[in-house]
Formats: sequence, structure tokens, C-alpha cells
Amino acid sequence: MLNNRTYIFIYVLLWFIKEEIIINYDVIIIGAGPGGYSAALKAGKNGLTTLLIEKRKIGGVCLNEGCIPTKTLLYSAKIFDNAKHGEKYGITVENIQLDHEKIVKRKDKTVKILAAGIKSALKNEGVHYLEAEAKLVKDDKGHIGVWANGEEFSAKNIIIASGSSAILPPIEGALKMYSAGFVLTNREILDLNELPKTLVVIGGGVVGLELASYFNSAGAQVFVIEMLPQIGGNLDHDLATILQQNLQRKGVNFILNARVVEIKDGAAVYEQNGEIAELACDKILMSVGRYANISGMGLMEAGFECTSQGIVVNEYGETNIAGVYAIGDVNGQLMLAHTAYREADVCLNRILGIEDKVDYSIIPSVIYTSPETAGVGETEESAKKKGLEYEAVTVSMRHSGRYLAENEGGDGICKIILAKPSKQILGVHMITNYAAEIIYGAGMLIQQKTKVEDIEKIVFPHPTVSEIIREALI
Amino acid sequence: MLNNRTYIFIYVLLWFIKEEIIINYDVIIIGAGPGGYSAALKAGKNGLTTLLIEKRKIGGVCLNEGCIPTKTLLYSAKIFDNAKHGEKYGITVENIQLDHEKIVKRKDKTVKILAAGIKSALKNEGVHYLEAEAKLVKDDKGHIGVWANGEEFSAKNIIIASGSSAILPPIEGALKMYSAGFVLTNREILDLNELPKTLVVIGGGVVGLELASYFNSAGAQVFVIEMLPQIGGNLDHDLATILQQNLQRKGVNFILNARVVEIKDGAAVYEQNGEIAELACDKILMSVGRYANISGMGLMEAGFECTSQGIVVNEYGETNIAGVYAIGDVNGQLMLAHTAYREADVCLNRILGIEDKVDYSIIPSVIYTSPETAGVGETEESAKKKGLEYEAVTVSMRHSGRYLAENEGGDGICKIILAKPSKQILGVHMITNYAAEIIYGAGMLIQQKTKVEDIEKIVFPHPTVSEIIREALI
Repeated sequence: MLNNRTYIFIYVLLWFIKEEIIINYDVIIIGAGPGGYSAALKAGKNGLTTLLIEKRKIGGVCLNEGCIPTKTLLYSAKIFDNAKHGEKYGITVENIQLDHEKIVKRKDKTVKILAAGIKSALKNEGVHYLEAEAKLVKDDKGHIGVWANGEEFSAKNIIIASGSSAILPPIEGALKMYSAGFVLTNREILDLNELPKTLVVIGGGVVGLELASYFNSAGAQVFVIEMLPQIGGNLDHDLATILQQNLQRKGVNFILNARVVEIKDGAAVYEQNGEIAELACDKILMSVGRYANISGMGLMEAGFECTSQGIVVNEYGETNIAGVYAIGDVNGQLMLAHTAYREADVCLNRILGIEDKVDYSIIPSVIYTSPETAGVGETEESAKKKGLEYEAVTVSMRHSGRYLAENEGGDGICKIILAKPSKQILGVHMITNYAAEIIYGAGMLIQQKTKVEDIEKIVFPHPTVSEIIREALI
Repeated sequence: MLNNRTYIFIYVLLWFIKEEIIINYDVIIIGAGPGGYSAALKAGKNGLTTLLIEKRKIGGVCLNEGCIPTKTLLYSAKIFDNAKHGEKYGITVENIQLDHEKIVKRKDKTVKILAAGIKSALKNEGVHYLEAEAKLVKDDKGHIGVWANGEEFSAKNIIIASGSSAILPPIEGALKMYSAGFVLTNREILDLNELPKTLVVIGGGVVGLELASYFNSAGAQVFVIEMLPQIGGNLDHDLATILQQNLQRKGVNFILNARVVEIKDGAAVYEQNGEIAELACDKILMSVGRYANISGMGLMEAGFECTSQGIVVNEYGETNIAGVYAIGDVNGQLMLAHTAYREADVCLNRILGIEDKVDYSIIPSVIYTSPETAGVGETEESAKKKGLEYEAVTVSMRHSGRYLAENEGGDGICKIILAKPSKQILGVHMITNYAAEIIYGAGMLIQQKTKVEDIEKIVFPHPTVSEIIREALI
């Protein structure tokens, strides 16, 4: 028989164990996209006990339905296009074929390898991984906890990295036709095993243009309908113009200043210059933007401050509730994977007591069309808008020996925005092959407040396309 | 009738005009390669009266017989290889053909466009261009002048940028077979209109490997004979090993630790492990290195200090004779076009009174094989040799999402050399597509004495191959 003291002891022990189960993490992260998994890795590396919760797939939109899948597809398209138009470079082929189904399978394999890599890295850093839907809850004492998989978890720090989803705008018929599989978002289109004969892309931003570029190369007839007078969103206007011309030459059709008013079964109806037109097609890609994933997690109930953009955060990623952070797409700052990486670093540094801040002015953006466009810092338009005294230097890419060696009749440019009169570099934008790989260094130039006179000291290997930065400024 | 005073006046006037003709330049530059023409452009931009003298072709070896022609050829080879092996990326072709003659013609066109560009830039900056052989002469007063085209020119500053030539080593039969057109250097092989069936490349350095890579793709059977146990010269050993495996897989044959002892008509005779072997072939490329062009210009007679490496210069490019500089290959420092560019900047800054020095530790080097290799700063071997306390971090390129998306089964690596214990970045080396375009930023990291802890603050766009630097260090 157990006496009372033993009962009390066991009760206290169980209470401790229970507490241990609940409050046993230094960091809980909701969402295993680029922001979430990189935060988890950094937390693990720094000896913090870490729980990473994901309801769908490890790697998030970027790995499964975004950056990586599109790059896999676009690389196949590049090989195809280069071979098809290889004659001017002395290469001819016959009966060239693109096997879309095989490309999609290869995409799946690539994603699988990378997903396994992330999982193994997380394991190496001792991160606990839980596949479940997570909900934030406030307990009696006002502490925020996390409910997932029927259990309550608690932590000193909670990081919300729940990402974003494609917007399905309130266009007549859109939702119905999405359910019917006629309207697709980036998620569904990347798993399409059969090529549509005619594809209408609604929205000429990064996602729309990359997929338009692939499906056009793959053999579909592609129409891009864009509300604005230019494609590429915030892309520098001159680059947007050249990119559009390039894609047009390859066969992509653009319908600008146009608003889709209805989606029928088998057609998009749009209004342009006051006239209504109907465009028959096999599939529609909806790529008009993304919204932060803030619903269904109990954020409002728990008292989080949110706007239509996402969870409100300060420069360290801190929400209005102490100890809770929001990074990546869900805070609505700049919906890019590498922004999420940087925000994850800053957020973890905050937790670790290291002073750090995200400098949003040096976040590059890339469109992986062929040619690629990449830019960082002020565009001419943003400089004008801010009332900055600036000077724009634009040079043809044909000043680069390597560009000329690799681009018959190419019309790429490099455009650099300089402050006046200091000649400090404020922005670098280029449309050329390799642009994506060159732009990080341009970001460093901006970050370090480099002036034109300092450019000489940087050694660009010859012949490279990267030399165009020197060429433009010297 | 003219009086005596008039005669004296005319005599004095003529004397002045003559003096004007002789000493009418601020800068005379001998050699219009990358060093020479870029020095001329900078001089012109800064309002200096400038004469640029070239005996062969504007653009020098780099434009006419080196960097640019090889990149043109290699790009065609890349299209060809990608299409040929496109099946794993979902692309199939039939009857693929590489038209070598057409590729050579395109190369000539590319060179012509770039040469015209340089000429027009020189004209814009008011540089006088003279096609002639130049000789340096010392006058009675000890001043150095330049003889060219039967005239004497004089200047406040003279820059020797006469470049380098391919070494024809004292191998039995080499000179005879060179005259017979069986042995070629980079100059002749780039104008070869017919593909050799079998090509022996003597020397597995940058030039040898790039041309071996092209001719192998184009359909020749290629053998590379190298004296050392590794290819790629000073290339990091690990990269050299991977590069060799890659080229071997593509069909290039390597004969290492071997010394060519004789060249016969139709064969190279070499010694390996004490055994003599004969290798029949259609052409031989001699790519064992380059020597500085110091002969035939009257350098010794004029009192210039030279070694077998080239003209001796200090850190500003100044020779032992005041007012005379030597830049580019002719000073034997680092025979690379972008070294010449940098030396031209420093030399002109010296003339203009601006403090500047070449930092040879941040000069990148690139091999444009497929995959490319690029490196900057210390290699593991150079760090060891210098007795530095270092740590080598090596990661597989398969950690990069873009690399994985674009390389089925790729075995590239990124290797970073860090100082111990400071973790300052001393060297970055990579074998991967895009390596050439990424490396300038790595040079900036070394230049700025970046430490591992600072890497977080640099934003690499995702997904790019450039991210591997972050991946390796975080």
C-alpha cells in the first residue's frame, strides 16, 4: 500500500513530467518552408531545443510548388530552345522533342532529393519534426501555446512561418472553374501531366512569366493577361519592355491593360479599352499574387495584430505578443524565399541576443525567364517616387565579350541607378543570361555604399557577363 | 624678299613644330590588348593626350586568339552537349550536327564586332591609334622615346603592354612541325577550318583544357599530355580531380606525369614512368605556357631591367626607368586579361597621382570547361605552402537547389579556405555551372576580410548556385 506522502510525490512527479512535456522547447516553428526550416536549422545549430511543425510538405511552396519545380522545368526548356535555335551557333538537330511528362517526373525527383536533404539536415541539428496542423492558443496566464496533433506544446519562443497561398480573385466563375480543374494555380499547374494546347495566364508577374515562358517553349500557345501597362510587377520599366519583346519573339502573346471579368468553361473573358473579348483556352493559370496564410491558426483569437498584408512585425520579426515572431511570406514584407532566409537569421539572432536587422533595400529579385532578369536596390521608378536625386546609367549587354560570344543578336541591358552627386550605387538591374547568379554581388555593392570610384578595385574575371557592372561605371 | 629676322623666326617656328610633333603625348602605350586598350581609354577619359600603338590586331591575344574566341567555340559546344545528352532532362533530338567551320566563322564575326567596339571607344576618348611595330629608344639626354612607322614619338609616360606569346618548348621536332602546320598554338588552332580526327594537347593548363573540351565535344579524339600529376595548373587539387573525371567521362583522355620528348610528323612521342610511347594524331596543340613579349623592342639596349618572367616592375607597374610602366602579360605577374585591366587602372592612377595598388591575392581564375571551375584567393595547397593556419570547408554542389535542378548526377563542389581561428575567408573555389559569373563576389568577400559570421548579412537570391557560399558557411 502506498501512503499519502507517496501519492503526493507521484502527483508532483506527474505534474513535473506534464509540465516538461508542455514546456520542453526553446523554439517552436510553425511552417517548414525556407523561413521555417532555416530558422529551425539555425536554432538547432545553436543548441536550442526546437520543434518544427508543418501541415503539408517539408520545404513549403518554394520547394514543392514554386522556385525549385519551375527552375527544373525552365532548365529543360532552355536546353530545348537552345537546340531548336542552335543553327546560328553552328548546331543543327532534327526531330527535337520535349517530353513534358518526363520533365514533370524529373521535377518530382529533384524535389524529393532536396526534401530528403532538408529532413536529414534537421535531424543532424536535433530538430524535432512534426507533420501536423498547428494552432496558437492563449492559456489562462496569457501564455501562447501551440496545439498540434492533439497535444499542447509550449516554448520560450514561437516563430510563425506559415507562408502564403495563391490568390483566387473574386472573378465570376473563377472559384467554380478552379474546382473543376480548368483554372489552376502554381500548385496544380506544376503537376499537370499533359500539356495544354492553349494556356491563358492571368497576371504577368514573376510566377506568371516563368510559367508562360516554360509552357510556350514546351509547345503551348500562351496568352498573358495583365491589368497593368507593363509586365514583371516592380521590374524596372526598361527591363520589362525588353523582357516582353523577348518573350513575344518566342511566341508568348501579351494582353496588357486588361482585366479578366469572367471565367467560363473553356474561356477567359476580359475587358480592354472598354471592349469585352473572349479568349478560348484549355487551361487558365491564376497568378495574380499571393496572400499571407493567417487564417485557421487562431491568430485573431490569441490577440495577434494582423492586416490584410499579413502578421504585423517590427524590424526583428517580433509580433505584438512577446516571444512570438513571424517570418517569411506570412508577415507580408517581401514574398521571396531569400527574404525568409534572411528574416529567419535576424529572428534567431534576436532570440540569441545578437543585434541584427533585415535590410530590405538589398533584397534581390529575379525572373528566371530566358533571358533572366535580376535586380537589386532602387529602380528608376522607385528612385523617382522617393524623390531621390539620381542618375541612370544604361549600357547594352553587347559591351560584354562573353555576352556577345553567347548571344546572337541579344538585346540585354544593364541599368545602374546612382545617387547624385555622390555617385553611390543605389540599384543594379540586368536582363541577360547569368543575371540571377551575378546579382548577389551587386547587392553587396549597394550594402557597402560603394561609389563609382571604388569599382576599379573589384576584379571581375574576363570574359564574364558580370564585367558589365565595371563596363557601365568606368 | 625675306629678311634675316624672318628666317630666324621661321626656323624657330619649325623647331617648335618639330618638338611638338615629337613630344606631343601625355601617354604612349605599346600594345592594344586588354591592358593597353583599357589604359588608353582611361587616359583619354582623363583628358590625357594618348597614342596607342599595336603591331598586330586590336584587342591583343585575348580578343583575337584567346578568351573571346574560345568562349564562342565553347558556347556552341555547350549547346551541342546539352542537346546530345538532353534525354535525362526530357529533351530528345535526332541527327545532331556541329558545323565546326560555321562556328569558326561566327567566332571571327564576334571578334570583329568587339574589335570595332574597342576602336570606336578609343575614338570617342580621343585616343590616337597607330598600327605599327614600336621600338623603345634612348636619346642623348637619356630620355626614352618610341620609334614607330618611321617616326619618333615621345611622351611624359610610356606604358609597355606588349603581351605574351605561346611557348614552343625545345622538344625535338617541335619547331619543324610547327612550321609544317602539324603543331599549332592557340593562335593557329582557333582558325582551323577542319576538325582534326585526333588531337594531342601538350599541357593541361587553362588553354589546353578549354580547347581539349571544345574539340572533344566537336567530335575529335582528344589526348591531353601533362607533365604534372594533376591538370589545371594551380587549380585546387580537389577541383582538378573532379574536373578531370568530368572531362574523362565526356571522352577526353589524360596522360599525366608524362613528358613529350619528340614530335614526329603525325605523332607525339612521350615518356611516362620511364617508358617511351608514341601517340599518332592529326594535329598537336602546344599549350605549355606563355612567355612575355620582351624581345625586338630594344628593351635591353634602352636599359630596362628584365628577367625570364618579363619586365621587372614595382607594385605600381613602374619599371626601373622613370616614367615607363609595364602592365599585363609582359610584366609576367599573372597572365590574365583581368589582371591587365587592373594593372592598367593602377598604372593610370599612378600617372594621375591617385594612390592605388594591385591586390594580386584577389585575382580570380576561371577555366571555361563544362562544368566551369573558378577560384579566388588561397587554395588548400597555397595555404599549406605559406604555413597558414587554415580550415577547408567543402560542400557538394548538390546542396544548391538550382544546381540540382540543372545537373543530373552532377558532382561539383564548393571549397572555402578559412583562416584559423578568425574564420576569415581566404579562398573560394567552385566547380559548377555559373562558377565564372559568381566568383567576383567571392573576391569581394576576401578583399573585405569577411568572416563567416558576416555571411548571413549577404542576400543570395534563391534558388541560385551562388547560394552555395552561404550554404557552405552557415
